[in-house]
Amino acid sequence: MPTPVEILRKKRLGNALSREEIAAFVRGVVDGSFADYQSAALLMAICIQGMNREETRLLTMEMAHSGDMLDLSGLSGPTVDKHSTGGVGDTTSLILVPLVAACGAKVAKMSGRGLGFTGGTLDKLESIPGLCTAMEEKRFLQTVEEIGCAIISQTGDLAPADKVLYALRDVTATVDSMPLIVSSILSKKLASGAQNIVLDVKCGSGALMETLEDAKALAQMLVEIGNATGRRFCALVTDMNQPLGMNVGNALEVREAIEILSGQAGGALKEISLEIGAKMLELAGISGGRQKMEAALESGAGLKKFAQMITALGGDGRVAGDVSLLPQAEAVIPVCAAEKGYIGAILASEIGRASLALGAGRLRKEDSVDPAVGIVMTRRIGEWVDKGEPLAYLHVTRRSNVEAAQALASRAIALSREPVETPPLIYASVEGKCV
Amino acid sequence: MPTPVEILRKKRLGNALSREEIAAFVRGVVDGSFADYQSAALLMAICIQGMNREETRLLTMEMAHSGDMLDLSGLSGPTVDKHSTGGVGDTTSLILVPLVAACGAKVAKMSGRGLGFTGGTLDKLESIPGLCTAMEEKRFLQTVEEIGCAIISQTGDLAPADKVLYALRDVTATVDSMPLIVSSILSKKLASGAQNIVLDVKCGSGALMETLEDAKALAQMLVEIGNATGRRFCALVTDMNQPLGMNVGNALEVREAIEILSGQAGGALKEISLEIGAKMLELAGISGGRQKMEAALESGAGLKKFAQMITALGGDGRVAGDVSLLPQAEAVIPVCAAEKGYIGAILASEIGRASLALGAGRLRKEDSVDPAVGIVMTRRIGEWVDKGEPLAYLHVTRRSNVEAAQALASRAIALSREPVETPPLIYASVEGKCV
Repeated sequence: MPTPVEILRKKRLGNALSREEIAAFVRGVVDGSFADYQSAALLMAICIQGMNREETRLLTMEMAHSGDMLDLSGLSGPTVDKHSTGGVGDTTSLILVPLVAACGAKVAKMSGRGLGFTGGTLDKLESIPGLCTAMEEKRFLQTVEEIGCAIISQTGDLAPADKVLYALRDVTATVDSMPLIVSSILSKKLASGAQNIVLDVKCGSGALMETLEDAKALAQMLVEIGNATGRRFCALVTDMNQPLGMNVGNALEVREAIEILSGQAGGALKEISLEIGAKMLELAGISGGRQKMEAALESGAGLKKFAQMITALGGDGRVAGDVSLLPQAEAVIPVCAAEKGYIGAILASEIGRASLALGAGRLRKEDSVDPAVGIVMTRRIGEWVDKGEPLAYLHVTRRSNVEAAQALASRAIALSREPVETPPLIYASVEGKCV
Repeated sequence: MPTPVEILRKKRLGNALSREEIAAFVRGVVDGSFADYQSAALLMAICIQGMNREETRLLTMEMAHSGDMLDLSGLSGPTVDKHSTGGVGDTTSLILVPLVAACGAKVAKMSGRGLGFTGGTLDKLESIPGLCTAMEEKRFLQTVEEIGCAIISQTGDLAPADKVLYALRDVTATVDSMPLIVSSILSKKLASGAQNIVLDVKCGSGALMETLEDAKALAQMLVEIGNATGRRFCALVTDMNQPLGMNVGNALEVREAIEILSGQAGGALKEISLEIGAKMLELAGISGGRQKMEAALESGAGLKKFAQMITALGGDGRVAGDVSLLPQAEAVIPVCAAEKGYIGAILASEIGRASLALGAGRLRKEDSVDPAVGIVMTRRIGEWVDKGEPLAYLHVTRRSNVEAAQALASRAIALSREPVETPPLIYASVEGKCV
C-alpha cells in the first residue's frame, strides 16, 4: 500500500494520483493512518497542483464510500435531492421540498447548519416551536415514505472523510479548490442515497463562486463528475448578487417560505424554488414538472405537506396557518435611505454579515443562533427608493449588535441616479449526459 | 498580526511573504499558534511555490532567533565551525576539528546523530568507551577555551522552530526544498554562535543533492544567505559518489580518523579534511592554513588535541594511541569480487544502507546504534580488483542482518572491463562576498 509520504511527494510534483493512492488517502483520513498534518499538506498540494477529472471522480467515490451509504431503494417512488452551494435568504429547500413531494417524488433530505454569513436549513427549521431535526434512520425513511418528504440533520456516519477534510480545509486556506469542493459536495449527496440530484450553484457577491465563469465551471464539473458516478445530476447557476428572498434570518425565512407556499408572496425566491423543483421532477422522470409544481402551490397541497413534515419533526404544524406562532423579535428598526435613487447593488454577503451581527448566524460551529432576529428587505436591485424611506427592517433582540448591523446593512446597499438593470435570476442550466 | 490562514493563502497563491508574516509563522511554530497541520500545509506551499532570497533570509533569521543564541564572544580567538550536508564515511569533523584547534582557532561544535544511511558525528564519538556528548553550556565554553575545541550534542534550546519543522518535513515529503534546506542548515549554525562557517555540500549518489548542478545551487544559496546574515560563510562542493573514507560505521570511522591524525592513513578523507580545515582557518583570518594543518598533523599536535577533547568528554583518551580499545565486531566477513575488473561505481547510499543493516545506523530517531559494526572498503572507484579478491569487509555482530548487508554491498559496487576515471574530490569552491 502506498505510504502517505509517497502519495504526498507524487502530488507535490504535480503528478496524477492512482485509484490505489486516493483510496489509501481517504481510508487513512478516517482510520488515522494519515495524520492531520499529512492530510493538510496533501490538501495544499491538491489545491496548488490540481486534480484531473478522473482523480476528482475517484476522490468523490472514495469519500462517498468512507462511511455509511443511505439506502433509499425501499421507498415507493423516485428519490430526489437538491443541494445549494449556499447563500443569503436562500430558503428554497423549505418551499420546494414539500412541493416536489406533493408532485410524487420522495425527498429524504439531510441538511446542514449555517456558518459565517450563510444560513442553514436546519437552523431555520428549528426556529419552529418544538421542532427537532435529529431523527433516527428507520423513522426518517418511514416519514419520507408516508408524507413524501423530511428534512433532518445527518443520520449515521455519512462521508466521515469529508468531515475531517472539510474541517482541515477551513483552517489551512484550502477551501477554494475545484476538486476539493466537487468531491466534498458530491460525496455527501451520494452517501445520502437519492438517485436524482439538482445542484443550485450560486453566483455573486454572497456566494462561494463570485464570478459567472467560476460558477459555471463548478456547475459543469459537479454535473460531469456526478453523472460519472452513476446517479443523475443537473445544475442551475443562479444569482446571489442580492439576497434571494426578502427575509434573512431563521424564523423570518420560515415565514417567507410559508407566505410563498400559501400564495401570499412571490418574487425571486418563489421563482427559483419552482425552477429547481421542476428540474428535480424532470430528473426523476415526472413530466410537466413546472405546471405540477404550480398546481401543488395553488391547491395548497405543498403547504399541507409542509405542515405534515413540521409535525413529523415534532414541531408545531399550526405555524403553516399562523406565522405569528414563530419566534418574534423584541424590536424592529428601519434602515432608511440617505438619498433617493435606484437600488444599484445589495451586497448579499454584507446583508448576511448584518444578520450575523444581530445574532441569526454563527461564527464558530459551537455558537448558538437566535431564531427571531434578522433582516427584512424592502427593495431589490433596480427598484426606486425615496430619501428617508426604509430600505430594510432589522429584527433585533437585546443581544443584537444593532450598531454593527446598521452599518453593514447601509454599506451593503448602493444607490444610483441612473436606472439600473435587474440581474437575471438564472444564468445557466447545466444538463447531465445521463449514463 | 497576520493569521495562519492569511499567510497560508498568500503562499498558496505564490506570493512572497513579508517579514511580519514569516515572523508570525516561526513564532507560531514554537508557541503553538500555528497548528502542526497549518505548518505542514505551509511547508507544502513553500515547497511548490518557492521562496525568494529575501524570504529565505528572513526565514533563516527568524528560525535562528526562535530560541537561545549561543554567545562565543568570550572565547580568546576566532570562532569557526563547519557543516556537512551528510554522507557515508564522512568523518571529516573528527579529523579537522582538533587540527583547526591546534592551528589557533576555537571550535565550539554541536553535532547531530545519524539517520537513515547517513552517519552522525555524535554516534561516532560515543563509540569511544566512557564518552558522553552531553555537556552543559558553561563547561562546554570552558573546554573550548582551554583545549581549543569540543564536539557535543546540542545544549540549550537552539533553533526550536527548526526542530518542529524538520520533523514535519520528514513525514510530509517536503524535505527537498531549497529555502527549507537553507534555512534549516543556517539557522542551527547561526544559533551555535561561530563567526566563520565552512559548509561542505556533498554531491552524488549518497548525498542530499545528487547532481552537481543542484549541489552548486545549494552551496551558492547557502553562502549568499549566510553572508547576508552578517557572519562569514564559504562552501565546498565535494564528492559523495562513493564513501569518503574507507571505513563506514561508528567505531570504524573513529579508527580511521585516529589513523589519519597519527599519519598512518591518507586518501580522500584526509585530503577533504585538510581542505575544509584550511578554508576554516582562512575565513578566521589565520594565514597559511593548509601548511599549518599539515604541520599540526605531522607534529602530532592534532592527535594530542583529539585525545584531550576525548578525555574532556569523559572518554578514554588512550584510544588515540591504541585503536584496539574501541569496540570490536564479533566477526569480519569479506565481500568478494565475482569478476575481475576496474571499480566502476560504489553507490555510497547502498554502502550506507548495508552498514545500517549491520546495525550501525538508525531508521527511526528512537533506535539505538551498534558502535562496533560497519564496513571497511578495500577499493575506490578506478582501482583494479581480481576475481575473488575482497572488495569490502563486513564487521558484524550476532544482531546484524548479514545477508541483507552482503546483498546491498555487492549491488553497490559495479565492475567495469574498461579503465574508469577517478572522480574529483572537490567540484567547486564557493567564496562569500564578506559584508
